[in-house]
Amino acid sequence: MAVYTEVNDEDLEAFIAEYGVGKLLSFKGIAEGVENTNYILHTSTGPFILTLYEKRVAVDDLPFFLGLMQHLSARGVPCPLPVAKANGEVLGKLAGRSAALVTFLEGFWTRRPNADHCVQVGEALAKLHVAGQDFSIRRTNALGPAGWRPLFERFQSRADTIAPNLADTISEELNQLAAAWPTDLPSGVIHADLFPDNVFFIGDTLSGLIDFYFACNDFLAYDLAICLNAWCFEKDFQLNLTKSRALIRGYESVRPLNDDERAAMPILARGAALRFLLTRAYDWLNTPAGAIVKPHDPLDYLRRLRFHRTVASITGYTGEAAL
Amino acid sequence: MAVYTEVNDEDLEAFIAEYGVGKLLSFKGIAEGVENTNYILHTSTGPFILTLYEKRVAVDDLPFFLGLMQHLSARGVPCPLPVAKANGEVLGKLAGRSAALVTFLEGFWTRRPNADHCVQVGEALAKLHVAGQDFSIRRTNALGPAGWRPLFERFQSRADTIAPNLADTISEELNQLAAAWPTDLPSGVIHADLFPDNVFFIGDTLSGLIDFYFACNDFLAYDLAICLNAWCFEKDFQLNLTKSRALIRGYESVRPLNDDERAAMPILARGAALRFLLTRAYDWLNTPAGAIVKPHDPLDYLRRLRFHRTVASITGYTGEAAL
Repeated sequence: MAVYTEVNDEDLEAFIAEYGVGKLLSFKGIAEGVENTNYILHTSTGPFILTLYEKRVAVDDLPFFLGLMQHLSARGVPCPLPVAKANGEVLGKLAGRSAALVTFLEGFWTRRPNADHCVQVGEALAKLHVAGQDFSIRRTNALGPAGWRPLFERFQSRADTIAPNLADTISEELNQLAAAWPTDLPSGVIHADLFPDNVFFIGDTLSGLIDFYFACNDFLAYDLAICLNAWCFEKDFQLNLTKSRALIRGYESVRPLNDDERAAMPILARGAALRFLLTRAYDWLNTPAGAIVKPHDPLDYLRRLRFHRTVASITGYTGEAAL
Repeated sequence: MAVYTEVNDEDLEAFIAEYGVGKLLSFKGIAEGVENTNYILHTSTGPFILTLYEKRVAVDDLPFFLGLMQHLSARGVPCPLPVAKANGEVLGKLAGRSAALVTFLEGFWTRRPNADHCVQVGEALAKLHVAGQDFSIRRTNALGPAGWRPLFERFQSRADTIAPNLADTISEELNQLAAAWPTDLPSGVIHADLFPDNVFFIGDTLSGLIDFYFACNDFLAYDLAICLNAWCFEKDFQLNLTKSRALIRGYESVRPLNDDERAAMPILARGAALRFLLTRAYDWLNTPAGAIVKPHDPLDYLRRLRFHRTVASITGYTGEAAL
């Protein structure tokens, strides 16, 4: 939530000239993005978002992220479109950072998602999965199952300072998931972070998806499991069955789940809850006091994890009778 | 440089409905404004700035600030125009704060002002002074000469921790200014903070003035003296005579200074330097370590003050032979 890198007007004018987007009219740093610095630009041809990539983003991954946005945009998935220079390149350099210019996507995230929002999110996620099938670049999910244990080991000894027995709980869960994790589900490009703040609506209509900087290749149904965690729980950490049913129905209206995916959903949902529990716990223990970006409470995801452990089949999320 | 108050989408939609500015398309918190929280809004009728007034701004002063922007806009001074509700009111309430919506002014501040910029700033300042003459609300300059000594006394005992003998230097200057300060110069509404970051240009053409939250009634020539300090010194704290001449010529092309104002200019410039030295020194000593907003170095203005003490007449700023 901060502008890490200041940009000066002359450098910016020179930068955007390469992109042929007209004359610079205004630019303002925006308080969005935890990882990168973002500016909103108005030029004589319209509004844009300028992103300066800070240290936490691997520059080698940028062709994947930016290429994916171009690929999805071209296939009708509403997302920011990276602007290309005359030579076709999208990445530039500004203020000592790798930088890109993307079209401005109107819309804003909803603080109070309802079932209708969830239907649209499910649809949009499935469309993203379908459109991503022929994307040629690949990126490993660094925060997928293979990454969980190494991440845990970086804070294992301090985990119980967050909650009693947290280290044992996580250890046990890692073991169970390692044994039960599916091995042969349909895979492809996933968003991997489609939380409410990454989905824009105008009025009640979904206008687009943003922030593809966790996108990677993994099981498609795992992405839906992330959304179950992100969209379908109430403030008391209880599942809202109306929302989870809406999310899954929206998804299946575009891309029906196969039997293996349906069977794996409770395990995938546990894995997704663990993934956010792990990163939040790590950030919780490693954020300096007084930091600009306040860490999220990791225990929100421990509570979700405990719920998913009680779910025996996908009907726990759809409310439908088991087949 | 921060978003102090978060706004949610539903409250914001209800807020802007009162202003009849169309449908909300997007809103993003911007990293501008040290005192207040600002959002850039796009609606179906155009871009706007939403300002939430934080605690440091006296709510009683808001009718002056907002009324002044309306008054100046109506007289052709390019500045943000507060949007009025159907009942004529401009102030609203949002997220527990007083809030206003103003038109978005395209343009951006120049990091490297040149003499041509200074001519235009001088012209714009004089136009503001002329247009402000018939503004009916009055506001005392809390940071004018009467406020300097009380402000100094709040950090006098710690002043020497900033620089050796700073307390004595300021004391002596306060005494000299009290004796020499003019008493009968043309007065009216002044901007009082027209630094480069408050003047927007598009390309090389001035597009508008922003941030009227220090505006008040005082000597008009004192406002020009503030601009001399803010626009005409180089990084080595030497006056750039080309710029100061340009600033004053630009000003006088719209509103010629009278003999008393010309004679008072070195004293007014000393006062302006002292005013920023005092507030910066106070902030320097009272900003917690690790604060988001880094304080400016007060000594930049001690150096300017020392320069102004060497100037005997306005020709020190214009380079013209004395009359």
